Amino acid sequence: MIHPIPSGTRDVLPDEMRELRAIIAAAHDVFGRAGYGEVATPALEYESTLARGGVASALPAYRLFDEAGDVLVLRSDMTVPIARLVATRFDGVEPPLRLSYVANAYRVVRAQRGQPREFLQAGIELIGAPAPSGSAEALTVMCDVLDAVGLERYRVGLGDVDLYVSLLDGCGVQGEARQRLMHQLADRDFVGLAREVEALGLDDEAAELLVHVPQMRGGPEILERLGGAASAAAEGLRGLYALLPPRVAERVIFDLGLLGGLDYYTGAIFEVYDPALGVPIGQGGRYDDLLGRFGSPQPAVGFALTIERLHIALTGEERA
Amino acid sequence: MIHPIPSGTRDVLPDEMRELRAIIAAAHDVFGRAGYGEVATPALEYESTLARGGVASALPAYRLFDEAGDVLVLRSDMTVPIARLVATRFDGVEPPLRLSYVANAYRVVRAQRGQPREFLQAGIELIGAPAPSGSAEALTVMCDVLDAVGLERYRVGLGDVDLYVSLLDGCGVQGEARQRLMHQLADRDFVGLAREVEALGLDDEAAELLVHVPQMRGGPEILERLGGAASAAAEGLRGLYALLPPRVAERVIFDLGLLGGLDYYTGAIFEVYDPALGVPIGQGGRYDDLLGRFGSPQPAVGFALTIERLHIALTGEERA
Repeated sequence: MIHPIPSGTRDVLPDEMRELRAIIAAAHDVFGRAGYGEVATPALEYESTLARGGVASALPAYRLFDEAGDVLVLRSDMTVPIARLVATRFDGVEPPLRLSYVANAYRVVRAQRGQPREFLQAGIELIGAPAPSGSAEALTVMCDVLDAVGLERYRVGLGDVDLYVSLLDGCGVQGEARQRLMHQLADRDFVGLAREVEALGLDDEAAELLVHVPQMRGGPEILERLGGAASAAAEGLRGLYALLPPRVAERVIFDLGLLGGLDYYTGAIFEVYDPALGVPIGQGGRYDDLLGRFGSPQPAVGFALTIERLHIALTGEERA
Repeated sequence: MIHPIPSGTRDVLPDEMRELRAIIAAAHDVFGRAGYGEVATPALEYESTLARGGVASALPAYRLFDEAGDVLVLRSDMTVPIARLVATRFDGVEPPLRLSYVANAYRVVRAQRGQPREFLQAGIELIGAPAPSGSAEALTVMCDVLDAVGLERYRVGLGDVDLYVSLLDGCGVQGEARQRLMHQLADRDFVGLAREVEALGLDDEAAELLVHVPQMRGGPEILERLGGAASAAAEGLRGLYALLPPRVAERVIFDLGLLGGLDYYTGAIFEVYDPALGVPIGQGGRYDDLLGRFGSPQPAVGFALTIERLHIALTGEERA
């Protein structure tokens, strides 16, 4: 007899669970050897915590009421809860702070999109470590996990969330027009982006910049082509790249249209892809302003790998 | 800066997390060696699934609405979701089926009671294994976990959920009066129970039975004092006790007032106590009717240990 479960959730049977446990064990092992202590936070947070973290709109969360009538939400990621935890429990501790987690997160899904409603993430937060060295460490730990589980063909897309904003500033695009362009770019709809840019009636050079820079992908040489408003971001990415060990650097593809999709990102952001899967296996980036929102201002960077997606990519590679 | 989290939830910092992970690893190890394959189910279930499992009233769950307007709940235990899983995914598989889990469950709390809203459980479900041998196996695996983590002074309270019902039947107590007595017993309020029994105006022997039998605790010799309506339950407990290996049998204290508190329990039920903690570390029992509610009738037994409580008991023993 079939008893349905909510769309976007699933049951995991023992054969698959054994493989997921092996991935989780490898992540724990890498995190531990890199000095990251594991933490756990409640799945249920006050809505006000997620709102303070600025993820309420990007990551719609399930709302429910507690016995006192307060609004609780199911956490939509671990970065905001850990920022709350750090501000509350580690205030004044000598940085950097290295924390890791393996935990489920929850997001409201739209019907028929095949989106996961519940997903298991393994990740780290490196608190109090500025760019570029902190970012280089986070990228290295992430690649060490992927290497440890045996994923072979993955690539890390690396961009800077400030890059496009700088270009928009440089071209004098503000207000609603700016939001329309950011929205198209967030959807990676470059046709829509070109249409929106054309409608602005900018000069040819500016229009060219706003349409083509975010489509640039490639090795570190593409950074050389950036100047003007994009110089600072390009300089940041060059500095980060120079710090990466060769085994990490060889995985990197600069992706100058990357936005990350999370309100708290600042500076360098990255996504992991594998040819065996059409969606990112994980993502990360700097969030230098988030701890400040919780009253403990300090730079930070982190990443989260989605265990189920990593497992699918691994299985796909083995089949290929 | 202090950012509150919902009462009954907590953050776990690295030092404690390391100790919890050691307990979880020991449980995984014991489960695996005993042939129990780990499964995972969604934290979010349809409300109709929990209602079918009969836990809706005993274990009040958080309700929320999905995008289609269906009512979802946060699972209040793992036994009902695994019954759903077995009926859906393992129908027709040759019994017994040995499944294990390490997962969070969620319960609505009453204010100011210090009850956990979210708690991590490690447990097994042994499906298709009748009493008494299945119950003996479940008790043995449970004690193996407790022994593996190094808990020394624990005791297992063992009773039969049918015992008091048989006594009530034998004394002709039905309807509302029966429910009042069961309610007092569930709260282990023996003063209230005596008052309710007295109000019934039964003959002295029946009144004595209904008040004193559920207060009987001790070794297997107390079973000898049971007769009449209680004979079948006493016989079942004797049969189970005879199958226990000495290391398990020596932990057992018969507790003839044990009810378990969950609607799906049938027959033998048990709870784990430690002198270092005032609340049960875990509980379990037979649920021979639950799979049938999901269309796959077969006997079953299981237990769940609450990891945080086990950790507190361990720490308490070490301090003592």
